[in-house]
Order: sequence, then structure tokens, then C-alpha cells
Amino acid sequence: MKMNKKLRDIQNMSDVRGVEIQKVGVKDVEVPLSVQRKNAANQTVSAKARLSVTLPHNFKGTHMSRFIEILSEWEDRNLLGIDIRGCLIDVIKKLEAKKAEVKFEFKYFIEKTAPVSKKQSLMGYDCSFKGVYKKNGDYKFILGVKVPVTTLCPCSKEISDYGAHNQRAIVSVNISYDEQHIIWLEDLIEIVENCASSPVYPLLKREDEKFVTEKAYENPKFVEDVLRDVVLEFRKHSAINWFEIDIESIESIHNHSAWAYQKESKVCEEN
Amino acid sequence: MKMNKKLRDIQNMSDVRGVEIQKVGVKDVEVPLSVQRKNAANQTVSAKARLSVTLPHNFKGTHMSRFIEILSEWEDRNLLGIDIRGCLIDVIKKLEAKKAEVKFEFKYFIEKTAPVSKKQSLMGYDCSFKGVYKKNGDYKFILGVKVPVTTLCPCSKEISDYGAHNQRAIVSVNISYDEQHIIWLEDLIEIVENCASSPVYPLLKREDEKFVTEKAYENPKFVEDVLRDVVLEFRKHSAINWFEIDIESIESIHNHSAWAYQKESKVCEEN
Amino acid sequence: MKMNKKLRDIQNMSDVRGVEIQKVGVKDVEVPLSVQRKNAANQTVSAKARLSVTLPHNFKGTHMSRFIEILSEWEDRNLLGIDIRGCLIDVIKKLEAKKAEVKFEFKYFIEKTAPVSKKQSLMGYDCSFKGVYKKNGDYKFILGVKVPVTTLCPCSKEISDYGAHNQRAIVSVNISYDEQHIIWLEDLIEIVENCASSPVYPLLKREDEKFVTEKAYENPKFVEDVLRDVVLEFRKHSAINWFEIDIESIESIHNHSAWAYQKESKVCEEN
Amino acid sequence: MKMNKKLRDIQNMSDVRGVEIQKVGVKDVEVPLSVQRKNAANQTVSAKARLSVTLPHNFKGTHMSRFIEILSEWEDRNLLGIDIRGCLIDVIKKLEAKKAEVKFEFKYFIEKTAPVSKKQSLMGYDCSFKGVYKKNGDYKFILGVKVPVTTLCPCSKEISDYGAHNQRAIVSVNISYDEQHIIWLEDLIEIVENCASSPVYPLLKREDEKFVTEKAYENPKFVEDVLRDVVLEFRKHSAINWFEIDIESIESIHNHSAWAYQKESKVCEEN
Repeated sequence: MKMNKKLRDIQNMSDVRGVEIQKVGVKDVEVPLSVQRKNAANQTVSAKARLSVTLPHNFKGTHMSRFIEILSEWEDRNLLGIDIRGCLIDVIKKLEAKKAEVKFEFKYFIEKTAPVSKKQSLMGYDCSFKGVYKKNGDYKFILGVKVPVTTLCPCSKEISDYGAHNQRAIVSVNISYDEQHIIWLEDLIEIVENCASSPVYPLLKREDEKFVTEKAYENPKFVEDVLRDVVLEFRKHSAINWFEIDIESIESIHNHSAWAYQKESKVCEEN
Repeated sequence: MKMNKKLRDIQNMSDVRGVEIQKVGVKDVEVPLSVQRKNAANQTVSAKARLSVTLPHNFKGTHMSRFIEILSEWEDRNLLGIDIRGCLIDVIKKLEAKKAEVKFEFKYFIEKTAPVSKKQSLMGYDCSFKGVYKKNGDYKFILGVKVPVTTLCPCSKEISDYGAHNQRAIVSVNISYDEQHIIWLEDLIEIVENCASSPVYPLLKREDEKFVTEKAYENPKFVEDVLRDVVLEFRKHSAINWFEIDIESIESIHNHSAWAYQKESKVCEEN
Repeated sequence: MKMNKKLRDIQNMSDVRGVEIQKVGVKDVEVPLSVQRKNAANQTVSAKARLSVTLPHNFKGTHMSRFIEILSEWEDRNLLGIDIRGCLIDVIKKLEAKKAEVKFEFKYFIEKTAPVSKKQSLMGYDCSFKGVYKKNGDYKFILGVKVPVTTLCPCSKEISDYGAHNQRAIVSVNISYDEQHIIWLEDLIEIVENCASSPVYPLLKREDEKFVTEKAYENPKFVEDVLRDVVLEFRKHSAINWFEIDIESIESIHNHSAWAYQKESKVCEEN
Repeated sequence: MKMNKKLRDIQNMSDVRGVEIQKVGVKDVEVPLSVQRKNAANQTVSAKARLSVTLPHNFKGTHMSRFIEILSEWEDRNLLGIDIRGCLIDVIKKLEAKKAEVKFEFKYFIEKTAPVSKKQSLMGYDCSFKGVYKKNGDYKFILGVKVPVTTLCPCSKEISDYGAHNQRAIVSVNISYDEQHIIWLEDLIEIVENCASSPVYPLLKREDEKFVTEKAYENPKFVEDVLRDVVLEFRKHSAINWFEIDIESIESIHNHSAWAYQKESKVCEEN
């Protein structure tokens, strides 16, 4: 039996394998967060967090409990781009790391207005904040959201005497933008929805259902079309300097999805 | 240090809490299985198994490794109703239990023929075999399958000048039937598909796409309609004595599903 | 082209198939909710809702948009047992149904105190509220929670010269209780945690890690043991009249789980 | 009504937006595959496929049904590195693309022998084949596997008077290697398992359980240790020219995971 001993700090011991670890930390940590909304009070969200640092070759391990302490402290702060940076600066200090990375994934609610009845209801979007900070001050923030929309197939409409297959599609976008600007989730979602055959809504009365059915039929789009239209929007948006688009259309006539993907950078990257 | 000792069988020790356990065993065990097909050679599938027994109040634990041994032995056998029973009789003997239960979940491939071009392709369905056997000889077998189909909304068609929203829906059915009969997965799937606006297919050429688009438009169905039509089919099928139907329609105009559920028994049940 | 027509209410049309539908409604609706906490201010949670009614045989369909309207109205109310009933009475009235059912699933945060350092951190638990209400006034409320704990294997400890395999296990419980009482999620979770080898915590400093490691080793439990101890607690709790327990232990020496299940009712049930 | 018309090929129409699409195709297609085993007959697996091509800026859409036709044709072929290339050459031809990419994900069974009793049982591993082929002949093949193992915490062992927390961890690796060699899944899995505190097994009798419990206790490893040991193995393997390692340890004392990640290339990459 080992008795009366001091609690030795194994993580702090030296390591001789000579391998610097690129990312080590914690994953799937559940935390409540307070997120800034556009023109409205903050929203409390339930987030899943991943937080990591680089680990120099000469240390055996990182201190996992410190990540949880830092996440606990940051729960009450309002988060958007700028505060993620503050959180990472904290991590760099407390864990003596060269580089730190955090990703929060959460459901964020936005009020949607039905197109004809004007009835309002809340819709939850899967969103994410990702930040990478280096000790030298370099910082990159990535805003992500999965936007469910309707796609109506142009081919099916063209060749059929009546009707056209349509379905829910998920447009997942990640963008990085200039720190001088703020891009709100509310605005990013609207850009994406406008590129689809139609947005989707939680609450639609009969007159609204007629409207969205006809709108989608008048506005047929392949995943290729949605992708190209979002690409053009992001290319022309002056604040966006990097983006990634992934569209998955849950085909109503198949048991598989149609899929398209694009990643573009307006700046030279070191990755 | 505990040395040279015999490996004591802790599970076999007596328990004094007086609680008979209804189900105890293993879950999420991956096993390859050989499944009987209708009019074709057996198909090797990759199954996830759950296997359990009742445990009398006076035993501390069951012997988990025996479940794995039995599953290993049964991998090569052809499975359908009757052999599940054989597997469970084995479990009852080797674990000295009053009652045993097994559930296998697996992807099963069926050849689909496109409606016009007649092109063939394989489609994978999520299927399950569940069996419950009691020492007194009582046996119940439940066959399950999730059938993806198309539903086209009757309301949207009626009120819109053109088009109608449609989407993929998943019809999950579980049935129990007379041991004198065999109900093939192939036949069960066909019954369900015929109750939808249209079946779905992996491979559709342009002439097929026109066909299924128009067929769905001519044949609008709410989840309520699909459910009622499947209920009527199952009620009139003389071999089926119990069934459960769950329909989830992945609405193309919402980010939520329309849902319907029914469970019926033609016999008196003790559950 | 269909022009100038009224928007006909297809759902209200009569149906001649003679099938009363047991449950029809909406599923996977995302809604923010305000949940009552024990001795603390309400907590805003992000819930996934399923809401359904029975549909008489003579109606073609239910009115899906009304479910969303009702859910929208109930977002701001404080929810625990009693208010779920209010929500369902609303549903019964607005949808003219005999019976209504609702289920909310959400992440709920509770403050945990590390056993030695007394450091505090929030832990998120998957919880659920389910209610069933009949027009005749019958009401049943089911409170559910998934409690992650540690299980340490008694057999492994007994036969090994040192060490013992241990792992995270998920104890999922559902209970129904007397309306005269309130059972708080905080208390239900504590009952379950006390039946395991050790609770789990988000934040553990070195002295806490020593404590929970030794506590689990001193307190070995099979899934059978955890199940029996929870069963005994629920049997002796005077307010609980029905319960269901499901334990899944993510075995550290296998790629499958050990599993146990029990369901008991203290009252005669019609189901 | 549109009658007697030809079925116009909408996809083949020209597009004026000037956006070349990087990847467009199909996702979540279920296909049975025949996979080459090391020193054994082929194994039939149930795969999920994603197949895509680049689409030039001047075409409106790709022909989704051709992907399914190609996948149908390749079901019966034995697959490992070399045949993935053949499949992609086919895609490039039939879809007139500059670049094609395919990813198959499937459960693959390997026979494991318990360390003391020598009892054999099958264990299923999540594996993947990914290939990228360019019209100019460039080809990259990536082999992936998720290996479940045991990790036992060095800190917990050091500071505790007895016991040590341990848990299942998932080591996900992707590697790219020289075409002159074949790296078998069987060998890749063995390399990874040897870097953990202990491998996991489906079937362990009492004497085996004693062995793996003590082995893990004698061999404590942080995720950092497992990562570094796998990195060193991959660095010294002469055929491997690129690799990615992701380790997630399902901590038994927390409800979150410890996590580590590394990606290294031995060659200059254009990505």
C-alpha cells in the first residue's frame, strides 16, 4: 500500500519521445453559454465544447481539469467572435501553450415569420463557434451554421407532366471573416435561405403552405444550384475571407442524399 | 498482494436483496449473421445484437462471456424465426434461466427494379429479428423493418396552383405472426411500399424519375393515410397476430417531422 | 390551373376506412423551455418535443400547425408535472381529441461539487418530461433522466492481483409518481448516483481524482448490483408508483456493453 | 399540361455563373462490398458510400444516377487500394470529370484470440477506404480504422492507494501509403492496439479478464502517451507517407472525453 505520499504531478514529468502534440484537451464537455443576438437580449444555449492546446515534446501530459475550470469561468460571458479570443488567451496562459483551439456547438433559436399569415414561431439552428489563437497573437474565428431548406428538382419538374420531387436539404456553412466586422448568425442564415428553392418554417398556416409550395415549384434548384448561389454570395461579401459549404439533400425519391461541397479562401493560407 | 489464489466465481455468489432481474445481458455486440432470403441464397449481414436473460433473486450476477460464446456459435446458422428459437433454447440451458430474449438489428439488401427502365440496383433496409423464449416453451418472434418511402401532402396539392410538397418518410413496422407461416422481409416491405405515395429506389433513370414524380402526385397521402392503409393490410393478413407501426415523415417545408403510431394485437396478451 | 379557389380544409374531410389512429402529431420540434429548478431560479433549456393526439376514425387528418402554435405558447411557462397537464388540456381542446401525449427531451444543468476540493462545476444531464392526458381527466406524468456513473467490476477486482476494470455506465430511469408530491430531478439523480460505484463529475482536481478512484475500488458493482440497488430505492420511495430502469455499462475491456433492465408498477395498470 | 415531349436533359444545359464545383455527387448510398482479407477469403461487408466528381463551370448539373450505376457494377469486385482506383477511373470516364473521389465506410470483422484461454471470437471494426483520382493519373488512397482499446490513467494510478480509473478509448487512424506496398487492416489494427494500455476483446473468460486487468494496470497511458506511441510507429513505418490520428477516451470518472489529435505528412503536399 502506498501511504501518506504527496500527490505527484505525473503530467508535469518530462517526456523523452520527442513528439510535440498538435492538439490535446477535452471533448464533449456540456456547458451553458450566453450568446449575443442581433438586436435582442442574449440567448442562453446548451453547448458541447471541445478545447485543446499544443503540448511541447518535453512534457508528459496536459492538465485536463484546467480546461474545465476555464470553461466554467466563461459560461456567463457573452460570446461572439471577440470573446472566444479572450477565452483562448486565458487557456494559453493557464496551460502555458503555444496555440489553443476551442469549438462550441449549440442550438440557437431565431424567430421566423410565416410568409403570408405573418405568424411567428421559433426555429432552432445547429450553430458553432470555432477559434484558434497563437501565442504570437494570430487569431482565426470560424462561424458555422446548418441551415435546413427546401430543394425542388429542376429535372423532375421539367420532365414530369405535373408535380416535382422536393425535399429537405441541409446547407452547412462555415465562414471566417474580418475582425473589423461582425457577421450575425441571423444574417448568415438569411443569405443561405435565399439561395434555396424555399426556406423552411416551424409554423405554417394553410395560406402559408400554399405560398411555400408554389414558391418552391417556381424556383427549382439542384444542390449544384444552391451551392453556386451561396458561393457567389460569399465571394461578393467583402468581410468574408474564407468559407466552406456542404449541401446534403435528403432526396424524397431515393434513400440516399445528393451532395455538393466547396471550400474557398480569399487570402493566402498556411492552413 | 493476492497470490496463487483460485479465480473465484463472484457471479455465482448468492444475493440477499431479493430482487429478481427481468433482463440482464449484453448489448451492442457486433456479429456477422447469415440470413435466409426469399427465393435466393443466404445473405451475410453485419448485425448488432442484444441478448439477455432473467436472473433469479438469489444469484449475484449472470455470466456475460457465455452470451458471447453462444452468439459466436450461431453466426454461421441460417436465421429466420425458427432458428432464433434454437439460439434462445441454447441460452436458457447454458445460463440456467427461466426466460431469454434476443434482438438482432442489421442492414439487409433487396434488389429493386426501376419502374420504367427496369434497371436493377440493391437497396439496404434496416431490419430486426427479436425473439423471446420461456422455459415452459412459450415463444414469440417479432420481425421488424424500416421502409423509406415518399409521401406527398394532399393538403399542399389541393390548395396550391401547382406542385405539392413531398418528402422521404420512414415507415417502421414490427409484426408477430403464426409459426405455421413464414413472412419474408421481401413481402413485408412490398406491403408497406404499396401504402405510400410512391416507393423509393436507389437507381432511377430519367424516364423512371418522371414516373415516380407523377405517381406520387397522383397519389397524395398524409402520414395518417399511410398508417391507416398499413393497418388495414395487417388486419386482413391472416398470419399476422400483432403489429406496431411508426411513421415519420421528414417534412420538406419544416425542420420537424409529421408522426403517427399504432399498435394492435389480434390475440389476448399478457405482454 | 386551379384559380381563385378557397383553401379547402382537406384534413377536416371525412374518412371511410374506419381506423381510429392512436397517436398522430409532430416529432423533433425544437423549442426553448423554462424548467423549474429545486431551490433556484428557472433554467432555460433547449428541448426536442413530440406532441400527439388520438384521431377519430371519421376524420381524414389532424391539424399539424396547431401543435406548433400550442408549443409556441407554452415556451415561456415554467414546466414541471402540473404544467404539462395544462399544456395537454389545451391540446385536447384545440384539436378536439380524446387523448393527448407530449414528450420533451432536454439537457438540464446541475451544479456538482467535487468531493474533496469542493470545486464547483455544471454537469448536463439528458432529461425528459412525458405526459398523457385523457378527456375524462386521467393524467400520467413520467419523469426521466440518464445518469452517467462509474461502475467497477467486482469479478475483475476479485481475481486480479491489482487493479480492476471500470468504466462509464449510463443509468436511464423513468418514474411516475403521485401528484401530491414533487420529485425534483436533482433528488432523482442523487438517488441513482448513490447506487453506483461512484458518481462522475465535470471538474476533479488531483485530490478528488484520488478520492473517486479509491471510492470506486472500495465499492465494486456489476450492472446487476446497480440495478438492484436502484430498484430497492424506488420500491421504498412512497411517492413513486411506477418505474423503469435501463443500465448500460460501456465496458472498458470489450467493445460492447453490459446491460440490465427492470420495469415495475405498484398499481394496477391498464397501460 | 406538358404532353408527348422528349425528356430534356436539364443537367446537360449550360451554366453561366462561372463557378466550378469542387465536389458533387451522392452520399449515404448503402452498398454491399467484397473486401480482401489478409490470408483469408474475401469478406462481404455492408458499406455506406460517398462518391463525387468535380463539375466544370459551364455545366448545370452532374448525372447522379450514373454514380449509382457505377457503384452497382463495383459491388462484386474485391476491394483494396488498387481497385478503388479502377472504380474512380470508371467514374472519370462516365462522368467526363477532371477529378473523382470515393469513400466507403463499413464494419469489418477480425478474429480475436483471448490472451490466456485462447478462445476465439469475431470483433467488428469501423473501417474506411477513401480514394482520390485525377485525370492526369495522380492517385491517393487513404485507409482508415477506428480501434477501440483500454486506457488506464497514470495519474490516477500514481496518486491512489489502490485501483486506477480506466475506460474504453477509440483510436481513429487514417493513413496513406506507397502503392508498391499493401498495408492490411489486420496489421494496422495490431499496431494501434499495441500502443494502448490493453487491447479489448469480445470474448474473455475469467483467466483472460485477470490478464487484461493486470496488463492495463501495469501499462498506464494518457491519451498523450497512446498518441505519441502511434506517431512513432507510423513515423518509422517506411511505407506510410501520411497519417492522421484522433484519440477519444471515454473517461470513466467524467461525462466528457479526453482527446488528442495529430496529422503528419512525410511528403510535400499540395493538399
